Amino acid sequence: MGVRTPKQFCSVLERPLISYTLQALQRVSWIQDIVVAVTRENMEAMRNIIQRFGHKRISLAEAGVTRHRSIFNGLKALAEDQPDCKLPKPEVVIIHDAVRPFVEEEILLRVVTAAKEHGAAGAIRPLVSTVISPSADGCLDHSLDRAKHRASEMPQAFLFDVIYEAYQQCSDYDLEFGTECLQLALKYSHTKAKLVEGPSELWKVTYKQDLYAAESMIKEKISQEICVVVNTKEEGSVGHLLKEVLKNELNCINITSTALDHTGGDIQNFLIDPCYSFICVNVVSSGLQETQKFLRKLEESCLSPLYPVVVVLVHCLDFTLVPLTQKMENLMWIRELAKEVKTKNVLLNGLLINYSQDEQKLQENLRQGASIIAALVKERSSALAGQLLVA
Amino acid sequence: MGVRTPKQFCSVLERPLISYTLQALQRVSWIQDIVVAVTRENMEAMRNIIQRFGHKRISLAEAGVTRHRSIFNGLKALAEDQPDCKLPKPEVVIIHDAVRPFVEEEILLRVVTAAKEHGAAGAIRPLVSTVISPSADGCLDHSLDRAKHRASEMPQAFLFDVIYEAYQQCSDYDLEFGTECLQLALKYSHTKAKLVEGPSELWKVTYKQDLYAAESMIKEKISQEICVVVNTKEEGSVGHLLKEVLKNELNCINITSTALDHTGGDIQNFLIDPCYSFICVNVVSSGLQETQKFLRKLEESCLSPLYPVVVVLVHCLDFTLVPLTQKMENLMWIRELAKEVKTKNVLLNGLLINYSQDEQKLQENLRQGASIIAALVKERSSALAGQLLVA
Ligand SMILES: [Mg+2]
Ligand SMILES: [Mg+2]
Repeated sequence: MGVRTPKQFCSVLERPLISYTLQALQRVSWIQDIVVAVTRENMEAMRNIIQRFGHKRISLAEAGVTRHRSIFNGLKALAEDQPDCKLPKPEVVIIHDAVRPFVEEEILLRVVTAAKEHGAAGAIRPLVSTVISPSADGCLDHSLDRAKHRASEMPQAFLFDVIYEAYQQCSDYDLEFGTECLQLALKYSHTKAKLVEGPSELWKVTYKQDLYAAESMIKEKISQEICVVVNTKEEGSVGHLLKEVLKNELNCINITSTALDHTGGDIQNFLIDPCYSFICVNVVSSGLQETQKFLRKLEESCLSPLYPVVVVLVHCLDFTLVPLTQKMENLMWIRELAKEVKTKNVLLNGLLINYSQDEQKLQENLRQGASIIAALVKERSSALAGQLLVA
Repeated sequence: MGVRTPKQFCSVLERPLISYTLQALQRVSWIQDIVVAVTRENMEAMRNIIQRFGHKRISLAEAGVTRHRSIFNGLKALAEDQPDCKLPKPEVVIIHDAVRPFVEEEILLRVVTAAKEHGAAGAIRPLVSTVISPSADGCLDHSLDRAKHRASEMPQAFLFDVIYEAYQQCSDYDLEFGTECLQLALKYSHTKAKLVEGPSELWKVTYKQDLYAAESMIKEKISQEICVVVNTKEEGSVGHLLKEVLKNELNCINITSTALDHTGGDIQNFLIDPCYSFICVNVVSSGLQETQKFLRKLEESCLSPLYPVVVVLVHCLDFTLVPLTQKMENLMWIRELAKEVKTKNVLLNGLLINYSQDEQKLQENLRQGASIIAALVKERSSALAGQLLVA
């Protein structure tokens, strides 16, 4: 795939891809245990990932030399007849790929429900390209009817006994050369899997372009929610103005605003979904100590290890009254503080907006400010943390 | 695909995807004519794209209601027996998708060469997912052996007479419901297409995640080449130091450096490949007029309509000798100039690097400067143009 690291260990926003997949699975409360098949050489790295990103309910099994041998080892960790099995045997088991991080609870529930009824079930997608069969001399033998075929994707779900029996009876040839679990259930357990249409986000991260796509999808996901923190003494003023412009600039984004004093101990309490972007308007940007207090609250809410958190300290002032460079000089502490919090995965920036008396110019500056905020939120570039920006 | 615009007209770096595909094709000198099948409602938009991005050798044909009818209309524009045909009949015709912008000359040459020998040829790729055949009740009927099947991709090439005859004889049913041109050549012209293994970059931009991937691939492509413009009077000094640090920061990137006086009339003359990133070190950053002269040269070389050009004006100075804010004040003209050149697709930024007397601190600042430059070059964020950044 043009990169040397196994793709599940490739870094996306400074976190290995497999950690996103584990996060997606452990978010689902009814999944009891997650068994990860890992090669011996990556075992230590995998343990570090689990510890660093706080993954729960994970057990490790040793990967085999082929895909099917790895899955079989994973199943053995759940089977009562295995001497070193420590996990309870489940009624249903889900089989998933480490390189499909965008799996949602809904499709998991649908394949599990179908597996309970049919014994086996798997997500499918329409074919993007026509599938053809080559002849021995590398020419077209025939092409398949796209309407009559589907791509078999993940997740798949099985009654545990159905798939475990299939693997126990599976020939060495199939363990070496087969790829499709649904086919094993059909061949060895005579179970016809139910096919469930899944979303396009289930695609398998395979090539370099897929890693790029995954990174953009993750960035988009965590940028959907923005929290604008305003100063209570300024109700109806600049923070609210900026919020309106932001809503226009970043359409479809959910913007909550709160007064700093109301956030109490846990900054996440008033937010419905976890939030990784905080725009503080004329609130804490005036003082180092208040900012440090705010950042400590953020740290206590424990968001930053999973995703980089963007914090923009916005300061609106009339550049004709206070010289810009003088104000910048007063805010130089942001540069030092940004260096410090970057180690905790917080990306801190200052933004000065020229609060012009001219209404039209003010609107223009607010728009520019909003588009700078949008870029900081969407791109989450750690190289630009600590900069003082001007609109 | 989660976006309303037909995907070939979706914007990537403020240019429609189809324009990248046309650019890839017209770069190939031996391609004589490019016929684009466009629906009547998009005809005017397509003409605007051709004019705005200076595409050459393009003719438009009206798209039909199905893929095959569109291709047939495109072929008619090249057929002698058609009354309104204005283009010469070619020996070989290539059929390609507007949503596969990363097609290279090499694969085009390989399918054309194979088509000359076999009458027809097409690019293929290994299957990423297993292909299955569902039964009428939505369950697995059987799964196909992945090793014995391939995905049929684009480009495909044909002797013109072979594919034109196939379309002339093609049944209405096939024109409505078929998708595979290689299959038509086999069925109606008894021509067995040669299959040619293509690179993964040929993938079809189909879903939102593919658009994200395409954008990142394009950004990566145009960031491979960076030109560091140095001041001749400073040979062996800061420009060269920065160049070395940049090489480490952006590994695999081709960095050319030149003295401003040597660039002569056309700034592209000394560059082997087109370059869209210019880092000017202690050269023009001191004066508005010199910068304007440099930017005019860039404009004359006509690069900017196709891609946003990044220009970073780097100024190294000892912050203990000259106060940072005073220097920033002197450089405020960059903000105004950036606004002006942004309309010409040039993204201008200033970067001040603290040229500390402490060797270790200096190296650290240069590294930070290089990582800021890397972010500006890779992300090409127009929202951040005009900012003065500090390392
Ligand atoms: Mg499979
Ligand atoms: Mg086809």
